[in-house]
Amino acid sequence: MNDIAPALLTAADVQHVLDHKTKPLGALGRLEGLAKQIALLQQTLTPRLTRPHAVVFAADHGIASEGVSAYPPEVTHQMVRNFAAGGAAINVFCRLHGLELVVVDAGVRGSFSDLGGRVRDEKIAEGTASFLNRPAMTADQCADALARGAAVVRDVAATGCNVLAFGEMGIGNTSSAAVLQHLLTGAPLADCIGRGTGLDDAGLAHKQAVLTRALANYQQAVTAAPRVVLTTFGGFEIAQLVGAMLEAPRHGMLVLVDGFIVGAALLVALQENPDLLAQCVLTHRSAESGHRLLVAELERLGAAPPLLDLGLRLGEGTGAVLAYPLMQAAVAMLNEMASFESAGVASSE
Amino acid sequence: MNDIAPALLTAADVQHVLDHKTKPLGALGRLEGLAKQIALLQQTLTPRLTRPHAVVFAADHGIASEGVSAYPPEVTHQMVRNFAAGGAAINVFCRLHGLELVVVDAGVRGSFSDLGGRVRDEKIAEGTASFLNRPAMTADQCADALARGAAVVRDVAATGCNVLAFGEMGIGNTSSAAVLQHLLTGAPLADCIGRGTGLDDAGLAHKQAVLTRALANYQQAVTAAPRVVLTTFGGFEIAQLVGAMLEAPRHGMLVLVDGFIVGAALLVALQENPDLLAQCVLTHRSAESGHRLLVAELERLGAAPPLLDLGLRLGEGTGAVLAYPLMQAAVAMLNEMASFESAGVASSE
Repeated sequence: MNDIAPALLTAADVQHVLDHKTKPLGALGRLEGLAKQIALLQQTLTPRLTRPHAVVFAADHGIASEGVSAYPPEVTHQMVRNFAAGGAAINVFCRLHGLELVVVDAGVRGSFSDLGGRVRDEKIAEGTASFLNRPAMTADQCADALARGAAVVRDVAATGCNVLAFGEMGIGNTSSAAVLQHLLTGAPLADCIGRGTGLDDAGLAHKQAVLTRALANYQQAVTAAPRVVLTTFGGFEIAQLVGAMLEAPRHGMLVLVDGFIVGAALLVALQENPDLLAQCVLTHRSAESGHRLLVAELERLGAAPPLLDLGLRLGEGTGAVLAYPLMQAAVAMLNEMASFESAGVASSE
Repeated sequence: MNDIAPALLTAADVQHVLDHKTKPLGALGRLEGLAKQIALLQQTLTPRLTRPHAVVFAADHGIASEGVSAYPPEVTHQMVRNFAAGGAAINVFCRLHGLELVVVDAGVRGSFSDLGGRVRDEKIAEGTASFLNRPAMTADQCADALARGAAVVRDVAATGCNVLAFGEMGIGNTSSAAVLQHLLTGAPLADCIGRGTGLDDAGLAHKQAVLTRALANYQQAVTAAPRVVLTTFGGFEIAQLVGAMLEAPRHGMLVLVDGFIVGAALLVALQENPDLLAQCVLTHRSAESGHRLLVAELERLGAAPPLLDLGLRLGEGTGAVLAYPLMQAAVAMLNEMASFESAGVASSE
């Protein structure tokens, strides 16, 4: 018997290994930081990425009926069918990079029961209420959504997955995310609102007017608890994302954070568990305008800057999955690169 | 018989297809530009990336004896052996992403004949002369290097390869590249000189002093033809890179340009064939300080900005290979994503 706890792997331990790889000190830039993050998370100098998954939560938004999106609300349902059929960008990128895709109906209007289980049914309701005049969901619905998001992650973890990319689909959900960002960070509302799927100037002005009106109707929510803000302005997919992100650390998973919507969900989740950030990777800087400030806030909280900056603004988790090869590269570098000693290479003078 | 030439595929043709994919217009950002570039290069709406290769040219530099690098000159030879043994970063990333690696001895000191052909022998000489007081190579050596670089690409093309990442290894070669950049672009010499593999402040000042002295010794070269500049200040690996890059378009290859050294070689190659740029992808923004200005110059000539910005400064072609999955994603998106029509999804209003 031995009661002595195993010594924790420290950042210095990983740095030592990195600094003896056959490359100048620090020459692999951001990959070295990633390798360190993953090694510390897994508490091993030989980390592995196993059974990578992408989970896309989809839901409809009552606020979409106010004309805040360039696309009609029925596109949420249609795109979920596209996910199930394998034709969307997220399908293409998951196939390319070897991630398994789980599509979750968190609250989409209409049924997918004809699809033979290719869409996981976690439907809270047929879309949220429009938060223009009343809360998007009830407190019970919010709690239910958080629990269901966590349940999805538990099931994915049970497959042996230790790296998870989160994505979303929901016409109108940049409106929801913009209000969450404004209320949780104090950033001016106008700076949180972007063109979403492609609003023109008139559409953007309308979106700003609608959201300004919605906020005026809910002055009391401004200072309320994050959970109340989520209930009042959130979407079912955003609430399930929050629940999912809070569950992931319990399974030692690396969390790949996509763009604006997932980032807003992360802001909410961090209010309950600030330590979550150590397990998250900001995968890309989105072209959605509010994302710049959101990233700045996450960096202020300790996040490393986003890895990619490719002008993406699609959602679905596409940016997170496109960044996945960088995680693979970081891990492969740590596991497979020779050291100066093993390769017989002279180090710097 | 039909003499009518087949209609050329235009950018508008590709844009039309991209705009009907199930995503908001432009929502895949830089991936859409990449897809367009590759489709136009291959003149098909269903492009394919076949037998991807990385070619790393290695050579020694006489100027390294002036103490311009943090590493001793013998590291070039040692690192080529590391490439042959599979232990370097470029090996790890090529294995991960499915690229075949060709290592070329363009002029490294010492023999690799014991390695059973794992290093391709295109040795011009045992390193260049120090360009501090005399030209790095003779005109004949430069012509030989250009021809050998082209021959390597012809052989790679013969395997069925249509996408090629270029890399390099050569202690001292950031000095060579800095002088080339200065003379070919007019950028101030000091702005072209960086820390390379990791010089400290004193080392950087010494490097600047050495290169300033070398240039003072060659005032006549400043206004000379690019070929003379290459002969006077180039390295054998840089000259072979130039020859290789000039050959690649003849085989319809997509050229993945790595960082500072490969970028400097591209500057030389563009003097002979400005159209080459249409077949090139700048894969990453290097942390080597001169690369910022070099990229700005390449953008002025029409290049799209680098895809990645990860603080890499390793060379070997590592940045180019790390960006390769983005080429795969662009091509897969074009080939596999459903259209609004095929998926039954409503487009924007």
